[in-house]
Amino acid sequence: MPTRPGALERRLALIVITDRGFAHPGTVVDVVGDALRAGAQAVQLREKTQPPRKVLPLARRLRADTRHAGALFFVNDRLDLALAVGADGVHLGPHDLPVAAARRTAPTGFLIGYSADEVDAARAAVRDGADYIGCGTVYPTGTKPDAGQITGIDGLRRVVLAVDVPVVGIGGLSPARAPAVIAAGAVGCAAIGSIMGAANPGRAVTGFLRAAEHATGQP
Amino acid sequence: MPTRPGALERRLALIVITDRGFAHPGTVVDVVGDALRAGAQAVQLREKTQPPRKVLPLARRLRADTRHAGALFFVNDRLDLALAVGADGVHLGPHDLPVAAARRTAPTGFLIGYSADEVDAARAAVRDGADYIGCGTVYPTGTKPDAGQITGIDGLRRVVLAVDVPVVGIGGLSPARAPAVIAAGAVGCAAIGSIMGAANPGRAVTGFLRAAEHATGQP
Repeated sequence: MPTRPGALERRLALIVITDRGFAHPGTVVDVVGDALRAGAQAVQLREKTQPPRKVLPLARRLRADTRHAGALFFVNDRLDLALAVGADGVHLGPHDLPVAAARRTAPTGFLIGYSADEVDAARAAVRDGADYIGCGTVYPTGTKPDAGQITGIDGLRRVVLAVDVPVVGIGGLSPARAPAVIAAGAVGCAAIGSIMGAANPGRAVTGFLRAAEHATGQP
Repeated sequence: MPTRPGALERRLALIVITDRGFAHPGTVVDVVGDALRAGAQAVQLREKTQPPRKVLPLARRLRADTRHAGALFFVNDRLDLALAVGADGVHLGPHDLPVAAARRTAPTGFLIGYSADEVDAARAAVRDGADYIGCGTVYPTGTKPDAGQITGIDGLRRVVLAVDVPVVGIGGLSPARAPAVIAAGAVGCAAIGSIMGAANPGRAVTGFLRAAEHATGQP
């Protein structure tokens, strides 16, 4: 089992979400390597357009690298790919396999995250077995043009108050914006562009982690 | 376990592959119902464009109907969806999760089919754990415009001779063409348009099944 009680929320202080198009100037593997060395403890592989056969080598590499670093590894959308590479969990959204179906299919201890931007959807996902909620879009972002409406910090706070699992903010987040996310009660941030597109991904990771540590009093 | 030794190839005399666009004048559920009543013993749900959340209700319904009829139920591409609805198997192709990865992920006895149009790919899939091969495109077809080159009856025969698992022909097949497929050594046919688009799907099913029975001497 990847986590002990209470450990999950600490490890979700930052979820580094991959994006092939964003990973400049390095490759996805390079940027994730930088992020892991800087202390990131959760990585999510997000490949919306590539077929599973093409994604598999990258998924295996990131699984190996995260395991080596003691970090959690999630796969977006595809439970089958997640299970095939031995990921710690899957991150699901409204168009994916429902949480309840994934929970019945996955082995005990397998983590399930769910994207919900409002209270009812978040509560339903937790009732169905979600281990954490990714809530947003907190701020407008170009990375997910289909992300729908903006929840803002107030919407994030409402979701945090509504569920008893960790909530991670997502959408337009940066180290500068992380304190507001943490102040709203989220355990951390999920970030794509501000890490994958950073000139110095390690420094961005450090910024995110400091914001979460400051709020929880972790050293 | 869905099959006993030898039973699989008899049940693969015909694989009815669903196609939402083709199911006229009835719905997919109606056409599959007709096919099952006519004796079809294998159904494959094929939904290339719909997200899993939208496909799930149909998958559950077809799983229930095939179970009621004692027929096998396969899901195309998505191992996770197949596992979530309790399908008997998954049908994979070159762009999907590799057979070896699916085999490691799926429970014992779960069936894996693989689309291969030539000998090397078929052998590799069987080595990796495929239970049967779907070989084609045997004849040109409009249902899979991306199907690649035409294998013909000769190409089908080469694949049949190369592997020791059941081979099912696919691509442009009809009851009239089924005898040639069976004569090439295939255990049966997979069909989309000639059943889903038939005025009388039951009659088309009967035609396919007779061709397979004739060859194997089944009553």
